[in-house]
Amino acid sequence: MERTVFIVSDHTGLTAESVARSLLAQFETVRFRYVTRPFTDTEEEVYGLVYEINSIFEREQVRPIVFSTLANPVLNDQLKTAPALHFDLFRTYLGELERELGQPPTGRVGRLHSVSDNSYFTRIDAVDFALATDDGLGDRHYQMADVILIGVSRAGKTPTCLFLGLQYGLRAANYPLAEDDFERDTLPEPVKAYKDKIFGLTINPARLHQIRTQRKPNSQYASMEQCEYEVRRAELLFKRVGIQYFDTTSASIEEIATNIVQSAGLKRKIG
Amino acid sequence: MERTVFIVSDHTGLTAESVARSLLAQFETVRFRYVTRPFTDTEEEVYGLVYEINSIFEREQVRPIVFSTLANPVLNDQLKTAPALHFDLFRTYLGELERELGQPPTGRVGRLHSVSDNSYFTRIDAVDFALATDDGLGDRHYQMADVILIGVSRAGKTPTCLFLGLQYGLRAANYPLAEDDFERDTLPEPVKAYKDKIFGLTINPARLHQIRTQRKPNSQYASMEQCEYEVRRAELLFKRVGIQYFDTTSASIEEIATNIVQSAGLKRKIG
Repeated sequence: MERTVFIVSDHTGLTAESVARSLLAQFETVRFRYVTRPFTDTEEEVYGLVYEINSIFEREQVRPIVFSTLANPVLNDQLKTAPALHFDLFRTYLGELERELGQPPTGRVGRLHSVSDNSYFTRIDAVDFALATDDGLGDRHYQMADVILIGVSRAGKTPTCLFLGLQYGLRAANYPLAEDDFERDTLPEPVKAYKDKIFGLTINPARLHQIRTQRKPNSQYASMEQCEYEVRRAELLFKRVGIQYFDTTSASIEEIATNIVQSAGLKRKIG
Repeated sequence: MERTVFIVSDHTGLTAESVARSLLAQFETVRFRYVTRPFTDTEEEVYGLVYEINSIFEREQVRPIVFSTLANPVLNDQLKTAPALHFDLFRTYLGELERELGQPPTGRVGRLHSVSDNSYFTRIDAVDFALATDDGLGDRHYQMADVILIGVSRAGKTPTCLFLGLQYGLRAANYPLAEDDFERDTLPEPVKAYKDKIFGLTINPARLHQIRTQRKPNSQYASMEQCEYEVRRAELLFKRVGIQYFDTTSASIEEIATNIVQSAGLKRKIG
């Protein structure tokens, strides 16, 4: 079974898409075909969309599913004339919130991801920081870090740092553990002074072997033996020094980042 | 007026938080204090949470607002005993979807951001690609790019490329336009062969001046004159060569990225 799903928004539609995908992931035997229509904010566009939904309904003989966030009630009513199962993410909760908070919603479009000077600079700064301190670079900046991730190569440090910057505005540096670092019982020299900011990432050796093989097939670096050795030594170090660490083996970037934020008690820096 | 908002999820809670923030942004005179409780999946945790909500209700004399996504109905019922305005993002739409699709939801936790091998490698590859081709580096990889962003320094290219990689799994390279590139009427040599993949970013000169000043105060690079010159020449180039471009001045990273995906007709590579 295949169903067509429209994501209609007067803004980016990223939130609506995320809601739709979480909900529809609960129905595993259905194949969903997503059509996204961000920045839909004119009657002409909605008219075209209604026409499109109609055509699909006629062709597929089953109504499409629409997830929408349209602030303008005129456009919203217009969209609802289409033959679809319509989930209006905007209005479902807004009435109840209005009663609770004793004031009407402003009705302004796309307030969530609008650019505000403050959060713009915070995010860009955090991304710049992650890039400047990636892979052990720029250790002179560590005192400005919110968190410093350490772990073996390909444990997930870089994408997690970038995600922490983009999503939370946090300054995340990362330092790769390598051969030299395993010969001592202490944290590597460059990060030694920042123990309270350090968070470890570990990974299952077989998974690491798979990831490194993807990158450098048949290398010593990717060998199962090397992966087992590095992971064992890294985990030993985490335990010996007493720093928190997280196993990234079956975790997505979102899961790793959320775990770090939660476990390290970090505060989101952007709204 | 200040209200406490709980985001409770058995998974990352990122979707729930995004919904909550979009909705509450509609009430501008209220200050919302967010408390996030990701990975809430035991009765003990929910018990503690109910206690916490109770305490806040007693202290603030107004009930907190709870946005939740808990797949487990037992935990969900338990959470609902707390004195709060409760928005159950999970169940609001699930009943209707179940009827429409003619099958029960699987009830599995956190399917959205779960790691699947395929999307894991696609995302990591896309982030690696953005890093390897940032700021004009790695032009030998351009043939593998989904999109190549060009624009003056600090027009928003790098964070947009990273976001396109993390959010869409798209391989986005970026090439900075500089002095040399303005002396000719054609696309710069390294990107010349890829006109159909190129997307331009532009920015208001005054805004660019502000951003560059933040980075290198009182430099020639940040001067209003230089910013005006570069932007004028870049836009001329975009028009002359006939490539699509987008003004990032008052756009967030999400808005820039969504616009590019939409305008360039790119397809999301990860679920």
